[in-house]
This record gives sequence, C-alpha cells and structure tokens, in this order.
Amino acid sequence: MALRLDYTNMLAPAVAHGVPADAWQSAAREFTRVHEAAAAQRTSGALGFLDLPGDAALRDQSVRFAESRSGSYDDIVVLGIGGSALGPVALRTALRPPYWNLLDAKRRRGSPRLHVLDNVDPRTMAALLVQVDLARTLFIITSKSGGTAETMAQYLIVHERLGAAGLDRTRHLVFVTDPRQGALRPIAEREGIPALDIPSNVGGRFSVLSPVGMLPAALIGIDVAALLKGAAAMGDRCATSDLSRNPAGAYALLQWLADTHAGAHIHVMMPYADALRDFASWFVQLWAESLGKILPAGGSVGPTPLAALGATDQHSQVQLFMEGPPDKTVTFIGVADAQGDIEIPNAYPDVRDLSYLGGKSLGALLDVERRATAGALAKRGRPNMTMTLDRVDAAHVGELIMLLEIATIYAGALYGVDPLNQPGVELGKQFTYAMMGRPGSEAARREWDTLPKPDPRHII
Amino acid sequence: MALRLDYTNMLAPAVAHGVPADAWQSAAREFTRVHEAAAAQRTSGALGFLDLPGDAALRDQSVRFAESRSGSYDDIVVLGIGGSALGPVALRTALRPPYWNLLDAKRRRGSPRLHVLDNVDPRTMAALLVQVDLARTLFIITSKSGGTAETMAQYLIVHERLGAAGLDRTRHLVFVTDPRQGALRPIAEREGIPALDIPSNVGGRFSVLSPVGMLPAALIGIDVAALLKGAAAMGDRCATSDLSRNPAGAYALLQWLADTHAGAHIHVMMPYADALRDFASWFVQLWAESLGKILPAGGSVGPTPLAALGATDQHSQVQLFMEGPPDKTVTFIGVADAQGDIEIPNAYPDVRDLSYLGGKSLGALLDVERRATAGALAKRGRPNMTMTLDRVDAAHVGELIMLLEIATIYAGALYGVDPLNQPGVELGKQFTYAMMGRPGSEAARREWDTLPKPDPRHII
Repeated sequence: MALRLDYTNMLAPAVAHGVPADAWQSAAREFTRVHEAAAAQRTSGALGFLDLPGDAALRDQSVRFAESRSGSYDDIVVLGIGGSALGPVALRTALRPPYWNLLDAKRRRGSPRLHVLDNVDPRTMAALLVQVDLARTLFIITSKSGGTAETMAQYLIVHERLGAAGLDRTRHLVFVTDPRQGALRPIAEREGIPALDIPSNVGGRFSVLSPVGMLPAALIGIDVAALLKGAAAMGDRCATSDLSRNPAGAYALLQWLADTHAGAHIHVMMPYADALRDFASWFVQLWAESLGKILPAGGSVGPTPLAALGATDQHSQVQLFMEGPPDKTVTFIGVADAQGDIEIPNAYPDVRDLSYLGGKSLGALLDVERRATAGALAKRGRPNMTMTLDRVDAAHVGELIMLLEIATIYAGALYGVDPLNQPGVELGKQFTYAMMGRPGSEAARREWDTLPKPDPRHII
Repeated sequence: MALRLDYTNMLAPAVAHGVPADAWQSAAREFTRVHEAAAAQRTSGALGFLDLPGDAALRDQSVRFAESRSGSYDDIVVLGIGGSALGPVALRTALRPPYWNLLDAKRRRGSPRLHVLDNVDPRTMAALLVQVDLARTLFIITSKSGGTAETMAQYLIVHERLGAAGLDRTRHLVFVTDPRQGALRPIAEREGIPALDIPSNVGGRFSVLSPVGMLPAALIGIDVAALLKGAAAMGDRCATSDLSRNPAGAYALLQWLADTHAGAHIHVMMPYADALRDFASWFVQLWAESLGKILPAGGSVGPTPLAALGATDQHSQVQLFMEGPPDKTVTFIGVADAQGDIEIPNAYPDVRDLSYLGGKSLGALLDVERRATAGALAKRGRPNMTMTLDRVDAAHVGELIMLLEIATIYAGALYGVDPLNQPGVELGKQFTYAMMGRPGSEAARREWDTLPKPDPRHII
C-alpha cells in the first residue's frame, strides 16, 4: 500500500495548539494557487528533481557504472558534504541491513561497504585512509560546482595517495558533478576520470535521486529502479491541486499554518525505525536550507527542523515536546510491518516490571510506543501527524523522499522565499577564502577585519 | 590549558540580536543568588553528579570490573536508552579512535568493540545478535529504575539467548542500576549477576560519570581517571559565585538571557570535531529534558537544544542560522590542536578552485571554517560563543561534561523549574503500559479511549 499521511492530530480544537480549523479550511481552498506556482516553476525548468525518477538515461549512468565495476571494490568512499553526503548516508541506513559496514563480505553478498567523509576532520580522514585497502577502494567525489572547499581538499589528498600507491586513478576515482560547469569536468577530461552528471537544474539538497545518491546506492546493491519508481508514484500523486489527495500539499500547508497561525515553528521529524534515523537528518537539510531565508521585502522566515528518533528520544527530547513551549509540530513515521520481529520471552512471570512484556514482540512495543507518544502529545495539545509506510523498502523510501521534496517547494511558495538558493552561506565562505588566502577574497578580508575581536573581559 | 569560553559574540550591541548589555550586567550581579540556590541543592544531597568525580570507590567498581574481565570479550553491548545510551556513545566517539568498531583487534589494542542498543527496533537487535559471538560478548544492562520498558524487553531477549547458547550468564551480563531499588537488584542477587551502582541521587541524564558511562569506558580502554580528574577540575572552577571566573555560570546565564531578553530560545551546540559529534546529542538530552517543563504556576518554558556539527552542517543548517529568524544561539566547540593533521597537496596549481588549498592543512581548514562561521553569524547579528579545548582527550571531555551539567542546574534555577525530574514523559509511558496490558494501567486505558480517533477525512 502507498504511504499514508494522517493529520487528525494537527487540527484544533481537538488538539489545543493545533492549526485552527478555519485557517485550514480557507488555506485548503487557496492551495490551488500554491500548486500552480509550483507547476509554473516546473514548466520553467527550475524543478529538475521532479524529472529524476523518469530519467532512465541518467539512472543508467549509475546502474551501468556499478555493473561495470562489480566485484572490484571492498569499500566505496564518498567525498562530499551537505546533500552529497546526507542522501547517500540516508539510503545506506534505510535500505541496507543494520551494521552494514561491520558485516563480512558474505553477509553483504559481495557488495562493498560505504563510507561517507562529510567533514574535513583530519583525524577521521587519516583513520579511514588507514582502514581501507586503496587497491580495493573507489572514491566518489561529489560536488555540483566542483568548488566545494571541503570536498576539494579531500580530493587533493586522495588524489595524491592513489598516485603514491601506484594505482590507476581512473579505476579508483569517479566524479559526480555538473554536466558542463565547474573545476571537476576539465580534470575528468584531462585525466580520463569517469564523471557522472548532476543535472544543472538539480541542487544539492534535491539531488539524492540523481547519481549523487543513485551511484553509491547502486554500488552497494540497493534497488535504484524500485526507489525511483516509488518516487515517480509519489510525484504522480502530488500532481493534483486537490489537497485532499495531495500528501505533499497537506504536509506543507499544515506545517506552514502551524508556524504562522499557531506558533509552531519547530518541525520535528521523528521516525520510529532505526532504518530512518539518518533520513531525518536528510530532511533537516532540505527543510532548513530551503526555507530559512531573508524575505525579499526584509525580515526573516523559516521553521527550524529537528531530527528525532523513536522510541529512543522519548528518553531525551519528548519531555520538552510534551511540557515545553507549544512551539513544535511532530511528524511521526511509523512502519506497519516490523520485519524480522522478535518475541520477548516471559522469563520473569513474577516480576511486575518485566512480566507484562513477556509474550509480546519487540516490534509491537515499538509501535505501541509511537501511538502512545502521539496520543500523549495530542492530549497535551501538541500538534502531530503520522506518515505510515508498510515497510522500509526502496519503493516506500522513494515515496517519502519525493513527498518531502515537493512539500519543500510548496512551503517555499507559502513562506514567500526561493527554496532553491542558499545565499546565507556565502559570507562564511568568503571569510574562509579570505583566511585561506584565496585570490579575489581581499574584500572579504577587509570585512573580516571589521568584526569584533575576542574581548579578554568576555573570555573565561 | 583548561577549557576556555569566549562569549564576546553573545553581547549586543556588537552583535545585534545578542544579549542586551544592561541585562547581562544586572544579571551578573544577581548570579550569587543562582549560585547559592545550587549550593543549597548540593547540600541537601540532590546533586549527586557533583560528587561523582571524587568518588573513588564508585570509580573503582568500574575499573576493577573491567580489569577482572580483561581479554574476555570482543564485543561489549550496552542495553540502555536515554542517558544510559547517550553517555557511553559520546565517550566512545570522543575518546576512542574513529571507526572504533570497524578496527581489528590489533588496532584496538585488544580492547573490545562497543555497541549501544538504544532502541527497540527488532531489525537492529536481530542484526547485532547475529553479528556478535555471544561467547565473547558482555551485555551491560543499564536502567536506574530497573523498570525501563525498552531496556527490560531487550534484557529478556538477551537473557534467553545466553541460556539457549549454554553460556554462564554471570559472565555475560552485568547490571548498572540503583544500589537498592528496582527490579534488577533482586534478580542480580538471585542469579548471581554482578551489579554496579548508580547512586540514588544521580538521574539518568547526569549519570555519565557514574558506572553508566565509566563501566563501558573502562572496558574499552578509556582513561576514566583522567576523565574524572578533568570533571573535578571544572567542578572546582565552578564553585565560585564570581561569574567572571565561572564558565558554567556564564554559559547558563547567557543562554537564559538570550532566550528571555532576545528571543533566542533555540540553543545550537556545534562542535568542529567529529569526535564530539555524539557529545552534542548527549547535551541535547541534558538541556531538553532538564529545562522543558511546565512552571509550577502554569505555563511552559524551556529552550530547544539542537545538535549540529561543523564544518558539515555549514552545508545543511547554517543557511537557516544565518538568515532565518533570530531565535538561536550557537555554541561552537573548537579544538586548538588538530591531532594527526594532514597536509593538502598542491596538485593543481593552475585550477583556481583548488590551488588556494594546496600547502594548507585539513585541520587548518576546519579551524578557519569555524572562525569564519562564527564571524559571519556575528556580522549578521546572530549571537554565538565558543568553547575551546586544547585537545579532545579524557581530561578536556571531563571538563566539558561537568561544565554543562552544572550549567543545567543554574539554568533550572533561572527558568524556575526542577532540572532533575521529567514528569512529561509519564503520560506516554502510561499509555504504553495500557496498550501492553500491564496490570494497574486501567485508568490510562480509559484515558486513551477518550483521545481523538484517526479521522478518515484527515488521512491521505
């Protein structure tokens, strides 16, 4: 069955701090406008991510590359940051068995491990380069622009190590980058390094269904065709301006209304499945970087997404969600079929704290806890909604990805911001360039020098 | 050198949305009251965590147990949730080499791997139980109350598996629990299972320096004496009511003022070190569960903590921090000495996007990015502060832990809440008991039945 979204608990007055019923009804009537704005953006060619599920040629770049290198590697290492890292990590955690990188080759059925170097911490990078056998390792360098400082620094180090080891770089490096622009394209051509495409109209945080996610996924044996098929099905489902049938529309509109009409500007994503733990972090980037913006007319908007995990975070963040300020919505993700469930033995029928668990299953406990937490939040007036997947498999994860990507476009229209840019990170980049002595950063250097200096009176 | 806290960028007018100078000055004068309230709590015996660094007998419970079992295990598995999981995970990530569980025994110098089962997802638990060799595995069951549903369910499963494998449970199980109360104590006595103490006056989220954290730490070769020594030093530093010398006091007061006087109620913890990635999640529980509360007189308070990682999240959340609503403070953690730094080769002197990196080091890039981000946030009026550690080692991590624990007590006094309880999770627990059919939960069952039912009109 396809993904379901139940937003019963999002609405006031049943849930005290929920979206007011009249706001929901009038917004629902106006959803057509939002949907049409998105449709116009698509027509203009801005929403390349919507075309990824149907782009068989692009999909085949990843599938064929993976097939052609089958059996060649024990370790795949992605050098990438932001969407280039979050997408592959989310897919590995969701769609490969738990502890994938700890499993031996037999349990991995011959597929390689997948590591993602998403930071420039020298300690981590040094440890990984010692850990892998370079002769059996493929490095995927993912950067749309080919100018990402962190990824380029990692690339330079790996490039040298491969040379020092006397290895053929064209067998151990592959680029995932813009089809035409950026520093990596000419390097690929000059050095004969294979390069796969991130379509020009697909930005980093919307790129998981491009080779950014599909290449590592295909290499570690994930069914990318099923993933894209699920995404396509959700794309079709959300092609309607009828809000009662459009889950991305309902999700975006409810979150926006909760923020603007009920003060709930912190949007928690809380799957009850370890497999979706890293998916929540992928969502955080999507929602934060797309919607946190200065408005064209001045002033700031943007909800703050928060990743959580059930049942784990019931013992960490739920106290705050329940009793803290009513400034949050919680989106639960439930999984209907607990694959490989385990029965809880009844070893202590005489011990009150243990006996009630005996004979139940671990999956049942997890599901009951999700329902209990949703119910308790509702009872305390805290709005929440629940997405239900039958299973965490490629098709359902594809649905989930596309739902949230489309919802982000709708939310951009509702908040009145461009969900596709990220101008706010430019200043930090310029300061970095200035301190690293990159030519052309002299103006940033001068601006840097005007900043407040550390004040000894304010250092303890 | 001891940990430094630089809060230059927290203060207005230099940083536009920072803490107003007059608010800071008058609050600083009144800090004595807050400090004395904490001192009174300590005298009353409520703040057991403050005594953990000096409790040699308790420390030796962990150290001696670890010594007595030296060489016996390849895998340690913690069954625990909340503080019982977050503390051990944070310590492993901070104080063992990266990829610890992937390293072979030689690289681990004979110390075992450490896994933490912090959820009741059957898929994860089944995978781990296949992965480890039970005959070479120790399970630590950590539950203060002995009644934590998730941990008890896991325990029942492990208990049975060990029996089915014909293994001596007293060699493969150890409890960490209240010295007197709860279900685990009588089981330990009856079955001869060793049990270490969580002092009665130490709650879960303040327990990392008790055997909750120290036992797994000692078992995997972490220098627990150095860790406790660092914590003790910070405890001593924060024993003064002179705010200009008390980093925990300054941290708590600034966060509270930023929330109540400048609308910054989202408190981001953003280390620039992979080793502290999981430490930020430990902090999230500490801050969220301690401060997110209903006030005695009604109404809700509580800042929302958010974990981030630099430089990684510059490509995910920083756009929102920079341009979104000015509702956040960011606490950076910098590391002065990049251990095992790597030089970036200058392989492409002719490529503008790469050449400026050549000859620099990866650690320098990471540090420059932290400073650039802090500066850019300040420039945009976003308050931030920076803690600096010379190194991520046991002593400095001990300092960091104690600083934030003490700050949490101060913050409780400032917000007017009891930072040691968590009444808000009770309702969800009761609903879980009701659905699991635990005797005595009939009232919760009736309350559950009054909740709004899923409404087909609100399901897509």
